[in-house]
Amino acid sequence: MALSLYDASIPGYVRALQNLASFFDKAEAHAKAAGVDPASYLPMQFFPDMANLTRQVQLASDAAKSAAARLAGVTVPSLPDTETTWAEVKARIAKTLDFVQSIKPEQVNGDETRTIELPLPGRTMSFTARDFLFQFAQPNFFFHVTMAYALLRHQGVPLGKMDYLAGGQQIPA
Amino acid sequence: MALSLYDASIPGYVRALQNLASFFDKAEAHAKAAGVDPASYLPMQFFPDMANLTRQVQLASDAAKSAAARLAGVTVPSLPDTETTWAEVKARIAKTLDFVQSIKPEQVNGDETRTIELPLPGRTMSFTARDFLFQFAQPNFFFHVTMAYALLRHQGVPLGKMDYLAGGQQIPA
Repeated sequence: MALSLYDASIPGYVRALQNLASFFDKAEAHAKAAGVDPASYLPMQFFPDMANLTRQVQLASDAAKSAAARLAGVTVPSLPDTETTWAEVKARIAKTLDFVQSIKPEQVNGDETRTIELPLPGRTMSFTARDFLFQFAQPNFFFHVTMAYALLRHQGVPLGKMDYLAGGQQIPA
Repeated sequence: MALSLYDASIPGYVRALQNLASFFDKAEAHAKAAGVDPASYLPMQFFPDMANLTRQVQLASDAAKSAAARLAGVTVPSLPDTETTWAEVKARIAKTLDFVQSIKPEQVNGDETRTIELPLPGRTMSFTARDFLFQFAQPNFFFHVTMAYALLRHQGVPLGKMDYLAGGQQIPA
């Protein structure tokens, strides 16, 4: 037996987006206990030219919806980067999760050597579906989810590796 | 056609370990230009109970060699966590890369529903090979590579997303 492109992509994206949402729930509780506004976490960044927390969520969302849509051969849904409040950032994660969860195995599976084109400013990159997923989409997505985790941890939000791997649920044991 | 477990794991690990090594090369050049010892980056951490840069490399190494060995059904090579110098941390990445590159497709491929056991303190987790890779090993590995990137960026090392995705090489275009 072998793997399908769906197996290798959508369930992991769903889980990680659920985990990302759980980071924000824990951050909200932590901020409340500390008597601070959770929105004060949103502008945090590790270096002046790096994306802040809001932008890391937008980029994680873009990575997930772009990968899911391109693998499924459907139009990438537009989610304008207009979030400025805590509630809006949480809603961006939820909207992304809704879209990724709507993708069905039969939309994604097929020839893993088919071409996927990725429009970038000034050029278009062309990958096989397999290379798109493993060389670009997947490491890119986990990068931004991890950055959001790191920015919240840096503020003292009590997250642990199991929050990142399993969203507070037990991973299969 | 479909994907193989090898396609979904080893090439991505090799690329990311090469990228991690390139972060250290760029950090070394940055430290030299700034007149500081690159070893001063090693104790950096984002929160007191988080792993520092040395430990993030050890954990990325552990994630890669453990996943590659378990998928291949071979003994996980022991690399004791004794690194204290910049050169030793770089050597840990190189030794991990050597091992992961030694794994052949025919060692990894096979039934993706076979059981992989993961011994943890106090218990053993049991996964299918597919779930082990996508639910545990892969997000865990990218987490630690990203943390190393973030810790170096936080110190001003001029890394960019292409260093993370493509290790200074052009990704297929």
